[in-house]
Amino acid sequence: MKDFFQVMRYEQALAQLMDVRPPLGSQTISLIESVGRIIAEDIISEENLPAFNRSTVDGYAVRAEDIYGCSESSPGFLDCVGEIKMGQSTDIRLAKGQCCWIPTGGMLPCGADAAVMVEYTEKLDEKTVLTYRPAALFENVMQIGEDVSAGQIILEKGREIRPADVGLLASLGMKTLKVIEPYRIGIISTGDEVVPLEKKLAPGEIRDVNSYALYTAVYSCGAVPTVYPLVKDQFDALLEAVSAGLAENDILLLSGGSSVGTMDVTMEVLMSFPEAKMLFHGIAVKPGKPTLAVQIGGKLVIGLPGHPVSALTVFYFLAAPLLKPQNRWKGCEGYLSINVFSQAGRDDFIPAALEEQDGRKLIRPLLGKSGLMSILSQARGFIHIPYEKQGLKAGEKVEVIIY
Amino acid sequence: MKDFFQVMRYEQALAQLMDVRPPLGSQTISLIESVGRIIAEDIISEENLPAFNRSTVDGYAVRAEDIYGCSESSPGFLDCVGEIKMGQSTDIRLAKGQCCWIPTGGMLPCGADAAVMVEYTEKLDEKTVLTYRPAALFENVMQIGEDVSAGQIILEKGREIRPADVGLLASLGMKTLKVIEPYRIGIISTGDEVVPLEKKLAPGEIRDVNSYALYTAVYSCGAVPTVYPLVKDQFDALLEAVSAGLAENDILLLSGGSSVGTMDVTMEVLMSFPEAKMLFHGIAVKPGKPTLAVQIGGKLVIGLPGHPVSALTVFYFLAAPLLKPQNRWKGCEGYLSINVFSQAGRDDFIPAALEEQDGRKLIRPLLGKSGLMSILSQARGFIHIPYEKQGLKAGEKVEVIIY
Repeated sequence: MKDFFQVMRYEQALAQLMDVRPPLGSQTISLIESVGRIIAEDIISEENLPAFNRSTVDGYAVRAEDIYGCSESSPGFLDCVGEIKMGQSTDIRLAKGQCCWIPTGGMLPCGADAAVMVEYTEKLDEKTVLTYRPAALFENVMQIGEDVSAGQIILEKGREIRPADVGLLASLGMKTLKVIEPYRIGIISTGDEVVPLEKKLAPGEIRDVNSYALYTAVYSCGAVPTVYPLVKDQFDALLEAVSAGLAENDILLLSGGSSVGTMDVTMEVLMSFPEAKMLFHGIAVKPGKPTLAVQIGGKLVIGLPGHPVSALTVFYFLAAPLLKPQNRWKGCEGYLSINVFSQAGRDDFIPAALEEQDGRKLIRPLLGKSGLMSILSQARGFIHIPYEKQGLKAGEKVEVIIY
Repeated sequence: MKDFFQVMRYEQALAQLMDVRPPLGSQTISLIESVGRIIAEDIISEENLPAFNRSTVDGYAVRAEDIYGCSESSPGFLDCVGEIKMGQSTDIRLAKGQCCWIPTGGMLPCGADAAVMVEYTEKLDEKTVLTYRPAALFENVMQIGEDVSAGQIILEKGREIRPADVGLLASLGMKTLKVIEPYRIGIISTGDEVVPLEKKLAPGEIRDVNSYALYTAVYSCGAVPTVYPLVKDQFDALLEAVSAGLAENDILLLSGGSSVGTMDVTMEVLMSFPEAKMLFHGIAVKPGKPTLAVQIGGKLVIGLPGHPVSALTVFYFLAAPLLKPQNRWKGCEGYLSINVFSQAGRDDFIPAALEEQDGRKLIRPLLGKSGLMSILSQARGFIHIPYEKQGLKAGEKVEVIIY
């Protein structure tokens, strides 16, 4: 038997892929469709937010010094000289001893430097307002530029946009923004035994699971998946499919060829491209040992195992970090429910469920025969047992990598 | 001043909304677009998975009893009677002392009940195979129905679909499935001072942040948002907008009217519908005190505060749970970095950042003046201080509700 597996360590394989992943351009999109996208360059505010001193309460705009020291027993007396209207500027200028009505969100008039809540005031007559509490300078006022000042970096390059960021950008009037283009990912399932979902299975055949599972997994990472038709394990057919897939995508995910003979064909096809450079062929990981990666021109081909459970698992620990590096270890901590054994000299990724027991987060490894799709579906993520460990102990605090 | 706030407790307000939230129908969609959707009825498998006994290794299909007790020093001798081809059934029937070549994923022939990895065998000649290890019954074999058996519930009603579930459904040939329809959410911003993003701001005006922030927040919850044009705080205009919004949606989010006068208009408009039923008007929560909810026919109107930070915060703790109940407390645990004070008799939701310090997850409340959009954008979620507490202590283990 050919010595197939000069296997590479997981961290090294991932680092190699991260190093050579194709660069991405940027594009300008509308703010309203930007959630989940990655900011392409630092966003700098051109304005102050708020653009004027705003009251944060319903009440009276005042000069703080005029009501210094007032109280329930010795209220301040102010002349009410008018009313601020929402959304409008005003000619009112407060002179010493004057105040005016202001609604929440209203613009402070010239001369005012604080607002008093209506609850702490009393209107004596049309012209006179009593205040029962003093106001600190700028109390109940959001000052010009207090939220954001002009020239400030408000969102940094590389950040994933969330609704609160959209709110911040809208506050500053930015209707469009520059984001990183998503990766285009081609998906090609191969295998003589694999048939489309619509076909009735003959004995020995299995359905094309990988096209579906990988499509949705890629989509969930914010990349743009394209599924190509199923290919048999033959040189010419595979070469044609890979050529088409490379032309139209940044990264190509092949799945199939988990047995020795078919993997030969895949390798032959990939290495037949003149610019092909093998990155690795075999990794010291369970599952996923036969995984391979080849750089072709500026693009990347990752050969996943054919078995759907292995293919999806490897996708999560090796391909997903390329598509969404900021999410890499989005984990959830908890305590291991049982001992888990491993083998030093390889990384293990074990599906696990998250449970709650007496207010404690329990992480329950889903062991049993590997390769069951139902197990992967029941799991909430993976436990990662690193290369140098021989297992993890029950009760140990571990992290589940959520998928 | 009118006694406006007969406020309701948070848990009660949320429970009321959950009780009366409009029922949702179901729809059939294609498997490939199902990620993130909610399953409408238990999904039962009509088939066994795998549909045949499959080898999980490259090697030889055997009768386990034939190689019982064999070893390196005393190998088993088997007659090789043929080869299984991927994806094909076979006429081969193993008799006593016979074996045949089988690839990973190949279908076990009649009579075989285990597989031996090629690494533990040696081909002596065309006809004879030596085995150096015994095989347990069904070793290296995935049996019929071992992953899923026919008649089994594979995914339960109410579950949110993830890529591994898509893989499971594809394995069983299900190209479509029934999911819950998404909520249609109408969004109406009101306020005399609020202007569209494209308009140059006059003094005292602010931009329409809520339409953008709420649109993206609703979208992130998997619901279908529709933004209506801005409305001034006038009875007729608001009545028209609310009527249109109710006709086309399940739930209507109004935002605006945070000052006393404008809130009156909103309440008048909503209560002018003959079937209107007030659920609450004012909640004992900071921020969000002026929040209101009215049931109109089978539909729901939630009146959010006008201030964008409050509006988005209230959306997350009061509206998002309706749209995505399974996500309600998707939290992340950590240790509080500083003391946080609150007031017993109200619930507080305080924006917080997540940090890592010496391998410990630190939760840093973002205090300072409330109502800054830049703070909400920096935060990763909220800390919830419940009604009966007066604060949380530094070092205490708390949960951040991620948004």
